[in-house]
Amino acid sequence: MKAEIIAVGTELLMGQIVNTNAQFLSRQCASLGIDVYFQTVVGDNMSRLQQALQIAKDRADLIICTGGLGPTQDDLTKEAVALFTGRALVMDPPALENIKRFFEQRGIPMVDSNLRQAQVIEGCHPLPNDTGLAAGVSLTDGGTHYLLLPGPPKELMPMFDNYAIPWLRSVMKDETPLFSRILKFAGIGESSLEHQILDMIEAQSDPTIAPYAKVGEVTLRITTKALTLEQAEEKIMPVVQELYNRLGKYIYAEEDVPLEKAVVRLLTEKNLTLSTAESCTGGLLSEMITSLSGSSAVFKGGVVSYSNALKHQLLQIPMDVLEGEGAPGAVSDVTAGLMAENVRKLTGADIAVSVTGVAGPTQSENKPVGLVYIGLAHKNGETFIEKLQLNGGREAIRYRSAKHVLYRLWRLLQKSGM
Amino acid sequence: MKAEIIAVGTELLMGQIVNTNAQFLSRQCASLGIDVYFQTVVGDNMSRLQQALQIAKDRADLIICTGGLGPTQDDLTKEAVALFTGRALVMDPPALENIKRFFEQRGIPMVDSNLRQAQVIEGCHPLPNDTGLAAGVSLTDGGTHYLLLPGPPKELMPMFDNYAIPWLRSVMKDETPLFSRILKFAGIGESSLEHQILDMIEAQSDPTIAPYAKVGEVTLRITTKALTLEQAEEKIMPVVQELYNRLGKYIYAEEDVPLEKAVVRLLTEKNLTLSTAESCTGGLLSEMITSLSGSSAVFKGGVVSYSNALKHQLLQIPMDVLEGEGAPGAVSDVTAGLMAENVRKLTGADIAVSVTGVAGPTQSENKPVGLVYIGLAHKNGETFIEKLQLNGGREAIRYRSAKHVLYRLWRLLQKSGM
Repeated sequence: MKAEIIAVGTELLMGQIVNTNAQFLSRQCASLGIDVYFQTVVGDNMSRLQQALQIAKDRADLIICTGGLGPTQDDLTKEAVALFTGRALVMDPPALENIKRFFEQRGIPMVDSNLRQAQVIEGCHPLPNDTGLAAGVSLTDGGTHYLLLPGPPKELMPMFDNYAIPWLRSVMKDETPLFSRILKFAGIGESSLEHQILDMIEAQSDPTIAPYAKVGEVTLRITTKALTLEQAEEKIMPVVQELYNRLGKYIYAEEDVPLEKAVVRLLTEKNLTLSTAESCTGGLLSEMITSLSGSSAVFKGGVVSYSNALKHQLLQIPMDVLEGEGAPGAVSDVTAGLMAENVRKLTGADIAVSVTGVAGPTQSENKPVGLVYIGLAHKNGETFIEKLQLNGGREAIRYRSAKHVLYRLWRLLQKSGM
Repeated sequence: MKAEIIAVGTELLMGQIVNTNAQFLSRQCASLGIDVYFQTVVGDNMSRLQQALQIAKDRADLIICTGGLGPTQDDLTKEAVALFTGRALVMDPPALENIKRFFEQRGIPMVDSNLRQAQVIEGCHPLPNDTGLAAGVSLTDGGTHYLLLPGPPKELMPMFDNYAIPWLRSVMKDETPLFSRILKFAGIGESSLEHQILDMIEAQSDPTIAPYAKVGEVTLRITTKALTLEQAEEKIMPVVQELYNRLGKYIYAEEDVPLEKAVVRLLTEKNLTLSTAESCTGGLLSEMITSLSGSSAVFKGGVVSYSNALKHQLLQIPMDVLEGEGAPGAVSDVTAGLMAENVRKLTGADIAVSVTGVAGPTQSENKPVGLVYIGLAHKNGETFIEKLQLNGGREAIRYRSAKHVLYRLWRLLQKSGM
């Protein structure tokens, strides 16, 4: 089944709110095996709404509208679909009851405009609103299916999950469901990853392989249609296996989690503690780690040694390493190593990581923007130091540096000795 | 001018990411006086992309595409618009140079597919990408204007602000220009701010007053159409004056800068240095400060004392303050004050700030989620301590805490003695 999502609301077109409803509905459709080919946003305007419905009807079997079910004059969605399908608006008695009860319970007089929220389209299957007042609509007209849902996410989500999904399953009863598997990669760029599996991407038909990237992470989604989970696994597993064969050392999770979560999980499993010494990332690395609830069990804390004075005072890096003719400098392998080792000793953590580099916009110590050194010190062995040359602006360099440290930490934690 | 925004990417239709680009572009268009009547999302599919372009061309003067400029086979936007306008794809030499330099600097071989990112449409005005590799396109063809922009927000936003806006202004030169003034507020919530200027918002016609909020900051944009800057100022200034009369102590900037930027500027002007001691914010505060280039002149660094052990070892907070029966605990006014005072002494900074609190999801020390103490210590006076009870989830609490510290720091720096 092909679907189009139409979000109705001028506030979306003004950029006052972000269209999270489209994401929610798309994700739910994907998990039901419904293909969403277009999302549209249109304002609270009758003629443009009619236009959008006509375009959607020509290219989709299912039109899901969200928003515009409220009590005010500019809530037009039900009227628009009634007009579009040549049907009348009628009162839904249970919805009317729900609205009257709402006002009685609160002891406030009901404004007549609220009755609009109990209206539904003639011949439809009304959808109850357990968390608000506006009734939803599910309707099949001339071979096209319509779902009209409220705009507020707190009303939309339960209405979709509890009432729209059973209705969708009933109208889709002859279609095959969709299954997918996610693999998350770090330590490799999107284009380099794709290059290494280009033959697989080009040859794909079933299952399909879809890559997408954030800074420092790449996701692959492997998707197939099948009648049962077993049949789906049979088709998906050989692809997953081949991806592990080629790129296994970059796969840090089989679900959609950030790299820092995989790291915190491993630290927790292995009962190891971590501390950080950051220069150019300025706290970003510890911020990523502590953004996860539960990180306090493994993360001791760290030092943001932004100035050389603090590198010396707090981390005991000798001044003649940091400054002066012929000194390695603050951005160097020596400093990265000492930062990691000394913050580990200072905090008593099992593992410590460090970052020092030139985030830009201008060079520093006559070293180029994007030059970054990272260090990993741990209680069981030699300190690991790596030199990176990163591209991008200040923010990208900081972000990539932090993600790269997490990647090296994740690799270290894979080792059996740790 | 009427615009349509087309976001290209199957990941949007699968619900894997939310379409924040449409919000950003809609908001920018609104501030330029461009009316957005439709937003569309289409997948990485040539025929559906052609369809979407045709529909947009029939109803808009300006088509803004975002996404699909990357190196991979499913990045089709430039090809699609070239086909749609009957133009060829050509290499943009500066973009090519940028890509080659990227790979040379990193010392990794360039995959040929990366060259695709240097392609632009024949006869267009290419838009440089300062934060990534894919060149953008601005083009006027047959009376329709096209902007092709990258999908990653970190590339899209600077390209739009620095290169697309000047181009848009040049193609809109015959329209009555729009002028706007921005005021940025901190230390006050959006609804409380709106409540205090409700009469102004309800009475507005020209200029218009549009509020929008991020966590910890509120922006008001005051906008009017006028033939000259002088005429615009005449209409805007009385509104700005009235806003200062009512809410002056919350206005930290007259341009769209984050609060941390206003703070770093004041520190720089007054030649003062800063350090931080963070517990519940876990590095977020120092990350916000160091995200600004130039912060290294005033920010010495700090300590992320996430565990009690580190509060004691690095910040010399006595253990009997932190733990034990009847002790104030890690989340207390005493600890917040000592964290600020001791990190200031440790680092030799002129001013130091601290945050300690319960970010959640569960309570700590039998104290409720959202309880946060902040401290400000400085060389010229008593330490300031404030207790906050914040709402929201873990992320919101951390973010609001950091922004509140910055607000108090900004207020302190306003004082003449500092």
